[in-house]
Amino acid sequence: MLREAFPCLHQQVNGKDLVYFDNAATAMRPQVVIDAVNDYYCRHNANIHRGVHCLSGRATDLYEQARASLARLIHAPSPDNLIFVRGCTEAVNLVAQTFVRERLKPGDEILISHLEHHSNIVPWQILCQQTGAKLKVIPMNDRGELVLDELDTLMNERTKFMSVIHVSNALGTINPVKELIAKAHAKDIPVLVDGAQSTPHLKVDVQDLDCDFYTVSGHKMYGPTGSGVLYGKATHLEAMPPYHGGGEMISKVTFEETVYNKVPAKFEAGTPNIAGGIGLGAAAEFMLDVGLEAIAQREDHLKQYTEQALKTIPGLRILGEASQKSPVFSFLIDGIHPHDIGTIIDHHGVAIRTGHHCTMPIFQFFDVPGSCRASLAFYNTEHEVDILVESLNQAKAMFS
Amino acid sequence: MLREAFPCLHQQVNGKDLVYFDNAATAMRPQVVIDAVNDYYCRHNANIHRGVHCLSGRATDLYEQARASLARLIHAPSPDNLIFVRGCTEAVNLVAQTFVRERLKPGDEILISHLEHHSNIVPWQILCQQTGAKLKVIPMNDRGELVLDELDTLMNERTKFMSVIHVSNALGTINPVKELIAKAHAKDIPVLVDGAQSTPHLKVDVQDLDCDFYTVSGHKMYGPTGSGVLYGKATHLEAMPPYHGGGEMISKVTFEETVYNKVPAKFEAGTPNIAGGIGLGAAAEFMLDVGLEAIAQREDHLKQYTEQALKTIPGLRILGEASQKSPVFSFLIDGIHPHDIGTIIDHHGVAIRTGHHCTMPIFQFFDVPGSCRASLAFYNTEHEVDILVESLNQAKAMFS
Repeated sequence: MLREAFPCLHQQVNGKDLVYFDNAATAMRPQVVIDAVNDYYCRHNANIHRGVHCLSGRATDLYEQARASLARLIHAPSPDNLIFVRGCTEAVNLVAQTFVRERLKPGDEILISHLEHHSNIVPWQILCQQTGAKLKVIPMNDRGELVLDELDTLMNERTKFMSVIHVSNALGTINPVKELIAKAHAKDIPVLVDGAQSTPHLKVDVQDLDCDFYTVSGHKMYGPTGSGVLYGKATHLEAMPPYHGGGEMISKVTFEETVYNKVPAKFEAGTPNIAGGIGLGAAAEFMLDVGLEAIAQREDHLKQYTEQALKTIPGLRILGEASQKSPVFSFLIDGIHPHDIGTIIDHHGVAIRTGHHCTMPIFQFFDVPGSCRASLAFYNTEHEVDILVESLNQAKAMFS
Repeated sequence: MLREAFPCLHQQVNGKDLVYFDNAATAMRPQVVIDAVNDYYCRHNANIHRGVHCLSGRATDLYEQARASLARLIHAPSPDNLIFVRGCTEAVNLVAQTFVRERLKPGDEILISHLEHHSNIVPWQILCQQTGAKLKVIPMNDRGELVLDELDTLMNERTKFMSVIHVSNALGTINPVKELIAKAHAKDIPVLVDGAQSTPHLKVDVQDLDCDFYTVSGHKMYGPTGSGVLYGKATHLEAMPPYHGGGEMISKVTFEETVYNKVPAKFEAGTPNIAGGIGLGAAAEFMLDVGLEAIAQREDHLKQYTEQALKTIPGLRILGEASQKSPVFSFLIDGIHPHDIGTIIDHHGVAIRTGHHCTMPIFQFFDVPGSCRASLAFYNTEHEVDILVESLNQAKAMFS
């Protein structure tokens, strides 16, 4: 069974079988990913791209094969469209400080949405402070969906860039990014899509979406920590100034003048997270082997099962009931602080996240400080959902 | 024996026992480091800092213990002086774009040395382009040592920052950084020291050096790829603007205003390389267990042995003969291109690096396109040095 592939799932915490429902914070890694990392360190350990010796050649091949696997996963035209980064946060900051920064003048506008993670808010606030541009926000409704009525006003001649999250980490909402991109492009506005929470769950096709940039978080899609990729259209990546200066991103350095390397090396200064990149490639291959459709179907079933199950608990309120959702449930229980719920059910072995989930504006909208969040992955089971519900009922009983 | 701790050393390449002399590009990892990474993925896999559940607590503890181990390794006053980064390249770029950028006006000067790696040149060239500042360079002599005669002119009222490499990756020169820092501080010039090649080999004491910033590369000091730390004086880190915007580096976010978190979280936006950080902590503990003095003594012996051995080869010229050196040997052999030498001795199982070693200006100084570089670590042996010499003699024979 697929679940057997994930070693960390099979343990007891606090004397109970672990129920891991914190997948939106970070996913578990299958053994093939752990093995790929190990294998690099134990058999192919070397720096990449610049060596004539055997190990360096092997390490380079593995790293570039990983880039190709990721290109296949998100249907990028070429591996050269992908820049290895630490994760989505670095990817957004990179685009903000290179592609977008040089296009901005005071009074220009950046458009984001109310559903963004802090990683897709703060980089733009910093950029606005640096340039005098303004941050504009697509509003949301109480179902946790974006309200698109005012889009024609929000996208105007001052709008120089749009950056939107594909799937909300806090509420699970799947945003209509293809529609948003088409509308933005009709007004010549380039678009970044934050895919941190989409690639683990959905089939993503960057060419079909026609996004200008797309970010992938490795650790959220069953890959190593500190890994991820930024997809960019080739014309953008060619035209953009570099981000980090350093080794590998240059073709010639003198103290007077430096000539930059071609894409993607131009954006990959210094020794990268080689083991992380190789492991991320293994994660992409694992997902392709399991099948993106199969993952989506399994998770859709789990989502429905969980929703029904949670709704049996009196006094439990789900925040975010978008018609298009991934298996993420933010909820509150009358009279009990989320932090207390999280702590109590941890004693039952159930791992959920509590708080604002790095999306304070969403909880400002709902006028609550935070929520409990159960976020599922395809390796979770109905039985685990039953344990969640049982442990929540026991928490309720303690406070009643 | 210590060598047994490094699994990747024990293999054959091209039918011969591997002789790994490419340690300045990246070091091998001991089993304890590999185990620490594995252990996180297999037993404690969770995101850090924001979870109430058991795994998250365990992962957070491991990550913060790693920070404390690194603080002990370089004698930082507190773990809070350390920011986890991908490596030295990111660390230098971070300091350039935060601490230094806001201090510069057109005509100001940044001082580096002729011995810098591209990672300590290009970030400053980019910064100079952004600000109108100028890059100044401490010259070198043909022994590969810095020439300090003109320091009083090079350090002047326009000099706003100095960034120097502790140990040259290309030549092995150990620079007199303590003396340089004292002279710079006498003129109120803050100093960053690039420690990529020092921490694997030397006992580093950031308080004794009194440097303002110090960079540590994880993968060069037997830790995971994609790991490293930036040390900074507390007053600087408090005063600096943040680098990346995102989760974790904030204490409050609204669309109108964002309040940043305290140091070091302020500089650690997004999910970090958790496994990498934990593995790097294990590397620091490993080095402390072996003993920094013991490592330095062993490597000093190997350096002398290698120098004598290389000098037996007619027509071999060592580039860089500083009185203070780490076990790094850049060399040329009359009539044979470095790339050919590297390729030939790879067939004997010997891994060296050939080329410019990301230090083109050094080779512009010597008026050669590059060199062969054999870089040793404490786990190398005299027998391996003998094999290197034998394989070089055979390469010579092929070309004679």
